[in-house]
Amino acid sequence: MGLFMKTKNIKTFKIITLFPDMFEPVFGQSMIWKAQKNNLIKIEIIDLRRFGMGVRKRVDDTPYGGGDGMLLMCEPIFNAVKSAKKGLKNAKVIITTPKGETWQQKSAKTFSQNDENYIILCGHYEGFDERIMSIVDYNFSLGNFVLTGGEIPAMAFVDSISRLIPGVLGGENSAQIESFANSENLLEYPQYTRPEIYKNLPVPEVLLSGNHAAIAKWREANFTEKQK
Amino acid sequence: MGLFMKTKNIKTFKIITLFPDMFEPVFGQSMIWKAQKNNLIKIEIIDLRRFGMGVRKRVDDTPYGGGDGMLLMCEPIFNAVKSAKKGLKNAKVIITTPKGETWQQKSAKTFSQNDENYIILCGHYEGFDERIMSIVDYNFSLGNFVLTGGEIPAMAFVDSISRLIPGVLGGENSAQIESFANSENLLEYPQYTRPEIYKNLPVPEVLLSGNHAAIAKWREANFTEKQK
Repeated sequence: MGLFMKTKNIKTFKIITLFPDMFEPVFGQSMIWKAQKNNLIKIEIIDLRRFGMGVRKRVDDTPYGGGDGMLLMCEPIFNAVKSAKKGLKNAKVIITTPKGETWQQKSAKTFSQNDENYIILCGHYEGFDERIMSIVDYNFSLGNFVLTGGEIPAMAFVDSISRLIPGVLGGENSAQIESFANSENLLEYPQYTRPEIYKNLPVPEVLLSGNHAAIAKWREANFTEKQK
Repeated sequence: MGLFMKTKNIKTFKIITLFPDMFEPVFGQSMIWKAQKNNLIKIEIIDLRRFGMGVRKRVDDTPYGGGDGMLLMCEPIFNAVKSAKKGLKNAKVIITTPKGETWQQKSAKTFSQNDENYIILCGHYEGFDERIMSIVDYNFSLGNFVLTGGEIPAMAFVDSISRLIPGVLGGENSAQIESFANSENLLEYPQYTRPEIYKNLPVPEVLLSGNHAAIAKWREANFTEKQK
């Protein structure tokens, strides 16, 4: 009473897309599903078509100055973003384009730790009206390759950010993986499980030795840095 | 009669995963769906659980030498790959790991033009038995970031390769986009569609001029190279 409690922000992702059905089976399973169930993250999928214009719910039109293909129009996107921002604190808009900054683990880490919530615009392979960039806070590219839409990059953003939020991976395991995240490069050592020999391929003997110091030494010697 | 016709290979992707449900809504829509319908590509999703061991269909076990998490075992993977290879010519096995070579547009192009068919192993965030690498032909990473599984990278491979297969994008548009794919870097110019002014943001006047030479010049001047 009389005290104002600061309620913790639950990291929220709102994804604006023409293909809302793509997301449920990806986010409705495994760790991302559990993270939502445990109120560690929130995900909302917004069908851009709902904000389409006229009776045909049009979302795209031909480019000025000529050219093939159809571009996503300003109005449906502006309206969808305005609607997504309602009641969402510290909302930032992300888009994916080939021009964007390449997505990296260090950004995933920053985005997992800050108080921002994300509205992700899924682009269209044929492009969009450039004026949409005026309401965008972050422009990322998944890498130096082209995809037919922004849906797969959106999944990658949500996945790579969410798994770094404390509690999502759970237990000791999260700490172990965290050590990779703290490094600029991603590191790995080879791992083996039963059986000891499979199709003439043996597990390295040291791993069966029970000698923890020797095992740690072997693992350190076999760490591999991710190729750039 | 008496002539042996060389039948054209239809590029085939077989994806081995513990989350088969994730793929249908992604590959069952848009361009990738149309490409399958037009017999330009084939996609088959293989549930790794089918190859699990014992009555519980076990696919993973604890690591030798200690450590958290469960590793995918050799036997289910080897058997799933063996089964996927049956009747599949020139089958190559792809896995995604942080150690892998970073996926790039030039690889997507090569993979779209060759006669290889691909079996994609979706990894597990906790890892897999290193001996699985003995049956792997290509090890790729989507980028310098960590995901909870290989499903999203598998979607990105199939999408980025398929859209470069002739006929998938269809018509003139494909040629236009092809010009980006031929470049080592990905290039773009800003595009605009109706209305001419939206929320005080105008379309650049030159694009409304109908002067094709001036438009071409403006677009060339506004080409942006993808940031690395």
